[in-house]
Amino acid sequence: MTTETRLAPGARIGIVGGGQLGRMLALAAARLGLSCHVYTDRQDDPAIEIAAAATVARYDDQEALARFAQAVDVITYEFENIPAQSAEFLDAIKPVRPSPAVLALTQDRLVEKNFVASLGIEVAPFAQVDDAGALARAVAQIGRPSILKTRRFGYDGKGQALIREGSDLAVAFRSLGGPPCILEGFVPFLSEVSVVAARGLDGDFVAWDVGLNTHEHHILATTTVPAGIDADLRARARDKAKRIAEALDYVGVLAVEMFLVSTPTGKRLLVNEIAPRVHNSGHWTLDGSVTSQFEQHVRAICGFPLGVARAHGPVEMINLIGDDILRWREFLGVPGACLHLYGKSEARPGRKMGHVTIMKNAEFGGAERDEDDLTR
Amino acid sequence: MTTETRLAPGARIGIVGGGQLGRMLALAAARLGLSCHVYTDRQDDPAIEIAAAATVARYDDQEALARFAQAVDVITYEFENIPAQSAEFLDAIKPVRPSPAVLALTQDRLVEKNFVASLGIEVAPFAQVDDAGALARAVAQIGRPSILKTRRFGYDGKGQALIREGSDLAVAFRSLGGPPCILEGFVPFLSEVSVVAARGLDGDFVAWDVGLNTHEHHILATTTVPAGIDADLRARARDKAKRIAEALDYVGVLAVEMFLVSTPTGKRLLVNEIAPRVHNSGHWTLDGSVTSQFEQHVRAICGFPLGVARAHGPVEMINLIGDDILRWREFLGVPGACLHLYGKSEARPGRKMGHVTIMKNAEFGGAERDEDDLTR
Repeated sequence: MTTETRLAPGARIGIVGGGQLGRMLALAAARLGLSCHVYTDRQDDPAIEIAAAATVARYDDQEALARFAQAVDVITYEFENIPAQSAEFLDAIKPVRPSPAVLALTQDRLVEKNFVASLGIEVAPFAQVDDAGALARAVAQIGRPSILKTRRFGYDGKGQALIREGSDLAVAFRSLGGPPCILEGFVPFLSEVSVVAARGLDGDFVAWDVGLNTHEHHILATTTVPAGIDADLRARARDKAKRIAEALDYVGVLAVEMFLVSTPTGKRLLVNEIAPRVHNSGHWTLDGSVTSQFEQHVRAICGFPLGVARAHGPVEMINLIGDDILRWREFLGVPGACLHLYGKSEARPGRKMGHVTIMKNAEFGGAERDEDDLTR
Repeated sequence: MTTETRLAPGARIGIVGGGQLGRMLALAAARLGLSCHVYTDRQDDPAIEIAAAATVARYDDQEALARFAQAVDVITYEFENIPAQSAEFLDAIKPVRPSPAVLALTQDRLVEKNFVASLGIEVAPFAQVDDAGALARAVAQIGRPSILKTRRFGYDGKGQALIREGSDLAVAFRSLGGPPCILEGFVPFLSEVSVVAARGLDGDFVAWDVGLNTHEHHILATTTVPAGIDADLRARARDKAKRIAEALDYVGVLAVEMFLVSTPTGKRLLVNEIAPRVHNSGHWTLDGSVTSQFEQHVRAICGFPLGVARAHGPVEMINLIGDDILRWREFLGVPGACLHLYGKSEARPGRKMGHVTIMKNAEFGGAERDEDDLTR
């Protein structure tokens, strides 16, 4: 639905997906006097406890989807691997923001790359791979190392195979379960950065400062702001996110992941991926910015004015993966550390259990301060 | 219960009272992976929607209180007018923090004043008033103007009668419903300030900077930080709060309201009231401080380390009372304004519907910043 529905406090937001992103969206909505209804296929998802209502059903259960849509005023999603046809079905009843068209585009790495490239925004070399012959031709064209990826449903490094010198192409292809795939040139990047930004219903665009991301085992480990790169590169990064958001007629928060590469003619940014949702690399905004990405997303999809995206000071966000959560008390004792735990009962390896934002500025803000230690 | 129970994420906090303070406590608890069970006598209280569980029953229903206590790991309260014997009853089952003794003391203005005075902390002149003769003697001793107050269950100016020149003492006494009362000297104060602070289970004490409070119709209207008073006065204010908290063996967040008065020998602070809970004059900490008063209270009552209380910069908190909430969209559009709405359906006159924190620092924090306007 493209109606320009602007909501008011008291409205109910439908969130498809019940993970920690949905949980933090529901907490942000509550601050603004809004309530949430979570739709998930998992009984014990962490967003359920926070939401005023929940539906637990398959993501393609049209009867449950219809009841859910009827019960809310606007619908959003906290992960992008829900069936595109379910998003379209919901959108026929209540506005889905970001739109089902955005969801469909970002669900397919090939379609997404073609879209970004069509805007004149640089991406890593890529080629469509639908069969073994296409893979051989793509590797010959792009070279090694390169990465074969499934076009759909990949996340946190899943659905990827590295093609090195000597790699058996048939084995790599089979390891992903066959087509449809995409081959992407391996980018020898200096660093990975991301822009988290929001576009309002009225077209207003606000971006947070660029974050520097590190990964471990293909999972985001840390985000640092400022990213330690030049102001002109940061401005260029945010401009790319803005052009993407405008071309998509985007409503809500999005994240654009980029590689920073060094070339003979200077440093350049290659767009790697668009996440049509609040993003792990924006978690620092909960403590480190005037407006959090979660509140900003709520503002955008409700047709509210966007908030300011200024940072309070330099921050580092550290993900707590699996057993990292056992260190919760240690982090609570670190001055300037803000702990967030997602309420998940089982700390499986690789599972995102929480995160910590370290406020790195010894002297926050400009307030006149006492010198005694009562406020620490 | 005085056992030194230290909890862990996954624990459940019982909150007695279901208003906006309980709602914001539940939101803070959720961030730390804790859940809440709210106990209130009102079906439509704003904290219920956020809490994982709720009991709606009278505050003296021992059967309901017992079931509630069994279902949680620690118990706190968000308003002080619950029956002291209910707090004691709960405390026999699960630890109540702050303790029932603190609650009983702060429920009686006379007991509270005697306690504060016994610490050598200055208060306005006061006298016990149990009958008409005592009132006449008290007025003769303290003078006019003075304020006759009920010793119990007063809030937001309710249960008070101003004794001016010519006021009929009998009428004033009757207007409060008779004894037990207290007469307090009217303090010609320069300003009203408050210290919001926390004491941990281990005795650690952390205070936020002093807030300058203004009231309208006896209801808090604004809190401004910094308060615009000298550093030594601010330090003295926080020291008073610390001595009070230590003398009470306090656990949790408390607020100490004070009058700043001018005397021939300099400015002095008179303690007016102790609130044994999170407090409206600490709402600015949600957006303006590294640790909010709500998270701090949760940390304290769970036996976690306290967080740092530094401010990000100068802030002003504005209460939205009654129809003020109609201005919600206007506030959302103010750069640096953080809006909080409590999800109350009916905007009755004098009812606290929400608040706004204005981050007054044009340049927040020390982060290197872009000059373009993408982050505003």
